[in-house]
Amino acid sequence: MTTSPGPAASKADKDTVRRHNLSLVLRTVRDEGETTRAAVAARVGLTRAAVSSLVEQLLAAGFLTERGKTFSGQAGRPGTALRVALTGPAGLGVEINVDYVSVCVVDLTGADRVRLTEYVDNRSAAPGEVLERAARIAARTLDSAAGQDLDAVGVRLALPGLVSGGRVRQAPNLGWNGVAAQSLFASALTALRPGRPALPIGSDNEADAAALAELWFGVGAGPEPVRDFLYLSGETGVGGAVVVGGGLLRGAHGFAGEIGHAVADPDGPPCRCGARGCLEQYAGQDALLRGAGLDAVPELEQRARAGDARTVAALERAGRMLGLVLSGAVNLLDPEAVVLGGIYRPLVPWLAPAAERELSGRVVSGLWRAGDGRLRGSSSSGDAARGAAAVVVREVAADPAAYG
Amino acid sequence: MTTSPGPAASKADKDTVRRHNLSLVLRTVRDEGETTRAAVAARVGLTRAAVSSLVEQLLAAGFLTERGKTFSGQAGRPGTALRVALTGPAGLGVEINVDYVSVCVVDLTGADRVRLTEYVDNRSAAPGEVLERAARIAARTLDSAAGQDLDAVGVRLALPGLVSGGRVRQAPNLGWNGVAAQSLFASALTALRPGRPALPIGSDNEADAAALAELWFGVGAGPEPVRDFLYLSGETGVGGAVVVGGGLLRGAHGFAGEIGHAVADPDGPPCRCGARGCLEQYAGQDALLRGAGLDAVPELEQRARAGDARTVAALERAGRMLGLVLSGAVNLLDPEAVVLGGIYRPLVPWLAPAAERELSGRVVSGLWRAGDGRLRGSSSSGDAARGAAAVVVREVAADPAAYG
Repeated sequence: MTTSPGPAASKADKDTVRRHNLSLVLRTVRDEGETTRAAVAARVGLTRAAVSSLVEQLLAAGFLTERGKTFSGQAGRPGTALRVALTGPAGLGVEINVDYVSVCVVDLTGADRVRLTEYVDNRSAAPGEVLERAARIAARTLDSAAGQDLDAVGVRLALPGLVSGGRVRQAPNLGWNGVAAQSLFASALTALRPGRPALPIGSDNEADAAALAELWFGVGAGPEPVRDFLYLSGETGVGGAVVVGGGLLRGAHGFAGEIGHAVADPDGPPCRCGARGCLEQYAGQDALLRGAGLDAVPELEQRARAGDARTVAALERAGRMLGLVLSGAVNLLDPEAVVLGGIYRPLVPWLAPAAERELSGRVVSGLWRAGDGRLRGSSSSGDAARGAAAVVVREVAADPAAYG
Repeated sequence: MTTSPGPAASKADKDTVRRHNLSLVLRTVRDEGETTRAAVAARVGLTRAAVSSLVEQLLAAGFLTERGKTFSGQAGRPGTALRVALTGPAGLGVEINVDYVSVCVVDLTGADRVRLTEYVDNRSAAPGEVLERAARIAARTLDSAAGQDLDAVGVRLALPGLVSGGRVRQAPNLGWNGVAAQSLFASALTALRPGRPALPIGSDNEADAAALAELWFGVGAGPEPVRDFLYLSGETGVGGAVVVGGGLLRGAHGFAGEIGHAVADPDGPPCRCGARGCLEQYAGQDALLRGAGLDAVPELEQRARAGDARTVAALERAGRMLGLVLSGAVNLLDPEAVVLGGIYRPLVPWLAPAAERELSGRVVSGLWRAGDGRLRGSSSSGDAARGAAAVVVREVAADPAAYG
């Protein structure tokens, strides 16, 4: 009743089990914040001896630190407090959006340790120039991180469009079509760091990356975690991501979550995607500013707070269109919550009432009611660069032996 | 580096492994159709001796049969052909829709063996009467099945509304709100079968059940299986279901897939759900018949085939509205295909062109093009009663020892 493994398979299995358990212990300490060997053993169901051996390896490799050694200087006592190291392996996240580039380095806990953001119009430059600029910002961020003894082991891009295999298939608001973003960025970064090995690189859609940050550090964390939610990222476009059961729904080709081009009005204004009346023509950043007669995003919140009628009306109109489209998405996906991120976050008080009217009238389950908290602003953690960087350190934690 | 199991745990583990392997062998034979012990062993990675022992148990319990014994009458030779038994444990599926009740019994392979459908207007009777009628039809179907030596081990309802915990939270087209469908049906069926034990019972939304049938026996089966698709069920309402990676996306409360109440036109006609301009007001059965000026569903296909301008125009309008709503759903979910079932199946030639125009213009990935086969009619297997019944026999196959 076994799979009759030969000796080689046994060896491989034993290595696999130890690597798995190293990861289990590291992730347990990370999620607990501060804990002891005994508590880890109780939590994961391994013996104290086994946990101690794993902890020693993780300490030696610099993934864990401990404090509270006894006066004899004796390390490794069951009561010694363990934490994840705040130095060592780190993740680099690079969000390239329409009007800014934001780069961060996170430590093994996923916390931001360095952040560098430049507000620039990325529509006015060629894709190659934008990616070179992003690489320069990234190189500077890595230098700062090195000063904190953080060493990035990988980089992940977050891009405002359809991303697959490291390429941007389409990013209408950047005017990008078929851009090899990942390889262009990687070449530029490698050229800026002579003598340093190239970093492994990956890419995500920016809303997907922000939703992962929200899942790991925002609504998905804490005492009442929400594991099924729809995330909307208000920027020049309206990005979206779907989280189901604590994981990202990526779709058959990696393009799921594109809610910005849902039809709000089939005969509405033309959209950069080529169709008419898409949600982002009503609820995107440009539409909001135009409707309110304003020039800059921060003014939206200022004027709304001051009760400016035109701004409030523009936000209410956008809220209604968001509600129309969201009611369809909620009927289709039945999420626990909808999280509004990006520029929407501070605007939720003005967007939500109209959106909730549509949701409460149109969601057939009757579970969506005004003020029930299901439609909410993102936490301060819902950030694409942080989410992308966290993907890197999550990969480290999934198999620390590969990085030790 | 182990979880240090005591002797009791070891015993439990061994039982668990054997039960798992019994299931693995049974499912392998089912999926292969006809196979041998040697082929099963090669496929699942168990030894031939282990497979033979498991096969003997499955033969003795009546889950498998064999043919092609040698002249010596010796059973169990490696070359003897194994099949899943076409008698024994079976599943009962009961679809209650607005204008019919359809009941089937499927064998362990999931094939329909008895089918009884009554076309009746379930809106004109109270929920309790409808469920009693369904139970009478079910009892008759079970009698027929017994004549084929098929013995239902469970029953599953498929209901046209939001179903959770055996209750219909809402079925606007039946006028049901908070109906304890499962317990009403179970009591009625038990009363009709004196002296027989009550059957375990479960419930699904009808589109979910039909999508499972499509997944297991239709587009999800065969040489090029589609594992990510959106299923639409055209009936009085427009039901929907989302299949992701070969599994049903149920949502946080079990209510996912409700595409019929997506907004096609926010200022459109009132819908039974209480909102305005929902898809089913344009593409539901009543809207199609009204638009075409017809009385019965079969006439839609007949008139369309005959080139009747009014019918063709009604189908084209419905196709456009389907395309508008589907483009939003496809952008959100990025499925491999959209499958049109229920009354839509024979109408696809007239619905698809307008729907594909919207899809090709609005799906931002650019992957949806007219005539590319992504929008397709359901197979003849996309049937809610069969899907529901198949859930029952899939549960048997997942742990045959519990039913042997």
